[in-house]
Amino acid sequence: MKKRILYFIQALLNSYAILFFSQNSVLGALLVVVSFFNPVAGLAGLVCVCGTLLIVNQLSYQRENIQAGLYSFNTLLIGIGIGSFYHVNAAFCVWLAVACIFTLILTVVLTSWLGKYGLPVLTVPFVLGFWMILLAASSYAEIGLLPKQSYLLNELSAGQVIEPHILFASFNNVQLPYYIKLFFRAISALFFQDSVVAGLVMSVGLFVHSRISFSLLVLGFAVACAFNAWLGIYPEGIGHYHLGVNFMMVALAIGGFFLIPSLYSYLWAIISVPVAFLLVGAFTKMLSVYSLPALSLPFCVLTILLLYFFILRTGAGKLQLTPLQHYSPETNLYLYLNNKDRLRNLQYLKLNLPFLGSWTVSQGYNGDITHQGGWAQALDFVIQDEDDKTYQESGTRPEHFYCFNKPVLACADGIVEAVVDYVEDNEIGTINLQQNWGNTVIIKHLTGVYSKVSHLRQYSIKVKAGEFVKQGDFLGLCGNSGRSPEPHLHFQIQTLPYIGSKTLPYPFAYYLKQQTD
Amino acid sequence: MKKRILYFIQALLNSYAILFFSQNSVLGALLVVVSFFNPVAGLAGLVCVCGTLLIVNQLSYQRENIQAGLYSFNTLLIGIGIGSFYHVNAAFCVWLAVACIFTLILTVVLTSWLGKYGLPVLTVPFVLGFWMILLAASSYAEIGLLPKQSYLLNELSAGQVIEPHILFASFNNVQLPYYIKLFFRAISALFFQDSVVAGLVMSVGLFVHSRISFSLLVLGFAVACAFNAWLGIYPEGIGHYHLGVNFMMVALAIGGFFLIPSLYSYLWAIISVPVAFLLVGAFTKMLSVYSLPALSLPFCVLTILLLYFFILRTGAGKLQLTPLQHYSPETNLYLYLNNKDRLRNLQYLKLNLPFLGSWTVSQGYNGDITHQGGWAQALDFVIQDEDDKTYQESGTRPEHFYCFNKPVLACADGIVEAVVDYVEDNEIGTINLQQNWGNTVIIKHLTGVYSKVSHLRQYSIKVKAGEFVKQGDFLGLCGNSGRSPEPHLHFQIQTLPYIGSKTLPYPFAYYLKQQTD
Amino acid sequence: MKKRILYFIQALLNSYAILFFSQNSVLGALLVVVSFFNPVAGLAGLVCVCGTLLIVNQLSYQRENIQAGLYSFNTLLIGIGIGSFYHVNAAFCVWLAVACIFTLILTVVLTSWLGKYGLPVLTVPFVLGFWMILLAASSYAEIGLLPKQSYLLNELSAGQVIEPHILFASFNNVQLPYYIKLFFRAISALFFQDSVVAGLVMSVGLFVHSRISFSLLVLGFAVACAFNAWLGIYPEGIGHYHLGVNFMMVALAIGGFFLIPSLYSYLWAIISVPVAFLLVGAFTKMLSVYSLPALSLPFCVLTILLLYFFILRTGAGKLQLTPLQHYSPETNLYLYLNNKDRLRNLQYLKLNLPFLGSWTVSQGYNGDITHQGGWAQALDFVIQDEDDKTYQESGTRPEHFYCFNKPVLACADGIVEAVVDYVEDNEIGTINLQQNWGNTVIIKHLTGVYSKVSHLRQYSIKVKAGEFVKQGDFLGLCGNSGRSPEPHLHFQIQTLPYIGSKTLPYPFAYYLKQQTD
Repeated sequence: MKKRILYFIQALLNSYAILFFSQNSVLGALLVVVSFFNPVAGLAGLVCVCGTLLIVNQLSYQRENIQAGLYSFNTLLIGIGIGSFYHVNAAFCVWLAVACIFTLILTVVLTSWLGKYGLPVLTVPFVLGFWMILLAASSYAEIGLLPKQSYLLNELSAGQVIEPHILFASFNNVQLPYYIKLFFRAISALFFQDSVVAGLVMSVGLFVHSRISFSLLVLGFAVACAFNAWLGIYPEGIGHYHLGVNFMMVALAIGGFFLIPSLYSYLWAIISVPVAFLLVGAFTKMLSVYSLPALSLPFCVLTILLLYFFILRTGAGKLQLTPLQHYSPETNLYLYLNNKDRLRNLQYLKLNLPFLGSWTVSQGYNGDITHQGGWAQALDFVIQDEDDKTYQESGTRPEHFYCFNKPVLACADGIVEAVVDYVEDNEIGTINLQQNWGNTVIIKHLTGVYSKVSHLRQYSIKVKAGEFVKQGDFLGLCGNSGRSPEPHLHFQIQTLPYIGSKTLPYPFAYYLKQQTD
Repeated sequence: MKKRILYFIQALLNSYAILFFSQNSVLGALLVVVSFFNPVAGLAGLVCVCGTLLIVNQLSYQRENIQAGLYSFNTLLIGIGIGSFYHVNAAFCVWLAVACIFTLILTVVLTSWLGKYGLPVLTVPFVLGFWMILLAASSYAEIGLLPKQSYLLNELSAGQVIEPHILFASFNNVQLPYYIKLFFRAISALFFQDSVVAGLVMSVGLFVHSRISFSLLVLGFAVACAFNAWLGIYPEGIGHYHLGVNFMMVALAIGGFFLIPSLYSYLWAIISVPVAFLLVGAFTKMLSVYSLPALSLPFCVLTILLLYFFILRTGAGKLQLTPLQHYSPETNLYLYLNNKDRLRNLQYLKLNLPFLGSWTVSQGYNGDITHQGGWAQALDFVIQDEDDKTYQESGTRPEHFYCFNKPVLACADGIVEAVVDYVEDNEIGTINLQQNWGNTVIIKHLTGVYSKVSHLRQYSIKVKAGEFVKQGDFLGLCGNSGRSPEPHLHFQIQTLPYIGSKTLPYPFAYYLKQQTD
Repeated sequence: MKKRILYFIQALLNSYAILFFSQNSVLGALLVVVSFFNPVAGLAGLVCVCGTLLIVNQLSYQRENIQAGLYSFNTLLIGIGIGSFYHVNAAFCVWLAVACIFTLILTVVLTSWLGKYGLPVLTVPFVLGFWMILLAASSYAEIGLLPKQSYLLNELSAGQVIEPHILFASFNNVQLPYYIKLFFRAISALFFQDSVVAGLVMSVGLFVHSRISFSLLVLGFAVACAFNAWLGIYPEGIGHYHLGVNFMMVALAIGGFFLIPSLYSYLWAIISVPVAFLLVGAFTKMLSVYSLPALSLPFCVLTILLLYFFILRTGAGKLQLTPLQHYSPETNLYLYLNNKDRLRNLQYLKLNLPFLGSWTVSQGYNGDITHQGGWAQALDFVIQDEDDKTYQESGTRPEHFYCFNKPVLACADGIVEAVVDYVEDNEIGTINLQQNWGNTVIIKHLTGVYSKVSHLRQYSIKVKAGEFVKQGDFLGLCGNSGRSPEPHLHFQIQTLPYIGSKTLPYPFAYYLKQQTD
């Protein structure tokens, strides 16, 4: 139960933090607080997030995505948007629920569809869902929604900056230079606010989370203001909404999140700002026909197109896409440089994990049970559920264990040196000390570098000695043969081709470590 | 020839019946009759359907799709639409043909593209094709089309209900309560009619076809009217067109066709109605810019999105998608419950068919020729064409037979027990009584449950004894070895691992039976 | 260096020639000249092409696509378009660069996405990119772009023909019949020109390149004019822009480029013209809401839809899609007929190349080194880079050679007759005269027709004698065993199943020959 609550809270905070491409709980909590600067909007957003999390849990979507907040940050924005622009009444609740469901459907569908191409959905579902509400509200004679007096929506639809006369006076009456106030106001635009204080609080959270992210927001801000000043596009200055939501966000996404931060990623962050001007202008003009605001669509379209543009290159060159997303530019950069350094001497042999999906190390190097002495540098892998259990049902048969029958793969290219595949799988609780390693495949990768996977399922091995295998080739199925009280996969690197050979410490080149807290 | 005419008539009737997600010929025939209540529209629709069927036959698209009417129901609607709104002249014929070809192209393209995601195309091609005609007619100074006086198109484009003054007086002067008349008028909207009598006739056909479908139309009607009454969205009542084509159809599609009917499917049918209101309003508003009606687009978009939303769940839970479409809610429900019951004791071993595509049983259990005595529970499979022939050309060589060289698959997981692959394939007309079973694979699935496939092609078998195979793995090619006068596949389940073992009756878990009439 | 310049020039000329579906350098050069009839537009176009080529080279996209001009013809049009409609100033340069980058991104993304379905991108990126500029220019109070006085853009946006009063008088004051002048003006519309002389020059280039293409342009012209005359759609005659860019181009694309030219392809070219009228009208009407011209979008949409419509047929029938594009209707037709004739007697055995991708024959039939006497009909294959080198780095290890470790495939269905896989790979520079053929696979296809691949990598062979293989099945990896001083693949057809058998001349059925100049 406690686990479930923690899981729910983490999903909740991530739904907020991911708006700045983060999974930082402190930043998430700060954003929750800031969203309540406009109490109705904050509450509507929170309700939408909670409702969304309940629905996606009930309908059993991917847990990893739910926990990362991937299904709920668009409905959060829908809640904040509707809460910001409409008065609360019975119809408000109905249409909030309808818009939330429709946006959730769009989120799931687009996340899957764009995901096939390795692309993110960003805030596209929010934009589409919010348009539906705006259109429906102006379409019918009577829908029950009462619009608030909001200069922001008018400004967005008109595409021109209208200087607000009476806006959050208490929040913005701070004695600061114009551009600094504008910067903080722009940051607060993410929540449809126009508040120096809100932007300040969000900036602090963001600065704590990542200095690189913060620097990119400043860069995007500066380039946009300079470009506007040069060409005089907005004579009265860029509106804080487009500044924050489109120009600064695109710099952040391209410069530090989807690309490994570097001089070149910053260069593309700069290039993307004038292109964003093109799209903001064009989309605003097109949508003015429907009296709709462009919202964050220019940012979404440009970021998705640029990403796919980079993905389609045949080589990476100096511009590296983030291979595994750690939701922090610093961590991404650190791991990229670290891996480059760590694996510099392993150019001929970079190991992949010998399985698919997410597994847990049940016994590591120098383990308590069997990984000792000359055999200490080995890893035992199992699959666990959220309660750290390795099985479902009673756990009295191998079939009950999550890892049983899962494919075992070649960790790198090589020639199969030895295969044992006739050892019977043990019943749960018994072990076979005569045939200690059970069914095993040994692959020669280089002279003096052999990998061994053990305890495979009887007769499941599809390769034979002398055969050439490529990285990722199917070897056999995870089983419960040999000295194995329950199904698990034993993996080790060794210097000799024999079944009982001693172990060699050797790093994996590519894997994603999951945070446990 | 008679077969061809039957095939054509079936395709024709299905093009009508599928508008209500049915393949019922009686319903189809009734709908043909109703379409002629507006003679010009009915004729234009019929001409479009016949033309479409000729073209797709000529260009050799998938026969199953042609027969189900999947390529022709959108052009049917185009014909009815153009026939309803324009006067007949030379230009009428030209543009009818052009619109029909364009809609057909869209139908084929979208059917394939959405089909990749397991999604239906619904009436999207009709909507797009009809828009093109409406736009072109108002774009050029002169296109030759003469619009009829039609309040319906005005009403649709304006998005407001305009009470018709003189409408099909004879049809609608029936003494019935308002809501009952509205219900039948809404049903008739599918054919751009506004007629109590037409709706009544269609309802009778639908009621005969499926009580579940009818109950869902009533449910959609009631929820839409209640929701409208509560919020007062359309102060003068919902127009019969949107009511029938969008609100009621979405309830039918979600509640009983794409989902197995259940309390939960009805719940989602109810939820989908308010969401449909959102889309009808939003689309009407957007399209009013172009003076275009939303037609059935809200229904299409919502149904397709909801379906993909459900497909993307990782588990089915209480909401079951229809696994194999039998075009009848009752049949879908019956087969779902029946299979659940029938296969309850087979949780460890659910058999798939040992091949791909559509085959025919040439000799079943207790067959006349060889499936007798202890060997009676066996099945012989061949591939037949529309004339029930098993071969093309002269049929004097194994290569002439449709099933020859087709892949044979493992019907379930297991360990290969025995393989024979050296028996030569017979010439046509001769049989090999020395090696009765020819090339054979026997797989052990459970203790006492073995499957055997026989008469495979010489040297085509890719598995070896002792090897583990997964369900659907390639075993070898269908051949003509052993006691086989012509190529066919022999399949049986047996309790012992030997080549001559006796048979065990055992059901297949998943397959689609084709209607033969 | 010289190679690089040639490569660049070829890519440049192809970017122009491909506008008429050609790779003819003379046509390309003529088009460059014609583009400079409007000097600013010509220069802007040239700058965009050069910039695009630099960027895609820098970011390492597919070389074949770069060389064919596939990434640069859309930015060429953007340059010509912006150069034709705006005055040159500082802002002009900025927005030209921004539009060029955005169009390039769209080109890469759409080329890949449509390519997954086997579809071309045509000028869709240009249309979208140009719309963005038009929209942005009219959206902002001030963007810095000064529009030229252009009747063309007004005409396009209005959808009506406005007779120009003062247009390129010197170019059009030619004494020719109205329709002939209109034909040449229509051809020149591709570059946003309205000039009889330009059209004449382009027509000459096109006529030299392909008489079929020219005839299709005439056909499209005639059908469009006749259809318009009949229905009186444009009472004052079709505008030269739509005539050239939409009606004539669609006839060219369908009648002779994407389909093998035939009576049926010409028939579909004729059918496509009225459908294009539907789309031109509909799109013009829709886009008039945004004051945007339809440009070449009707052509793009119709061609892409029709192509996919044809691709989705289950059989080719009388309408053949171009299987391998040679960028010339005549060549496509010749090769299609030639192959049909050449391979008529090979109906049971049509050979594919035994590898993937693009390889070079290093020693052909009757070669200088080893392909002599009874063993003369053999082919040695290697992979070369643009400098004709077969290796990278120092070339002192087999791994340095491009072809090493590449998969070797079965050229046709058959039964594996013999396998040798134990011969060690040679170090570079040494050869193994004891085991002349190295690791080898021999496949029996028909009685008296065996294929042999030799010099494979040790232990890489995945098939065994007696096994049935399908065309394209993986046999092993290219290696350096036997009489092989450097890694290469030896391929031959022979009449006997033995390793040293003599060769039989036999053609490949399907391959694409690359032009070398």
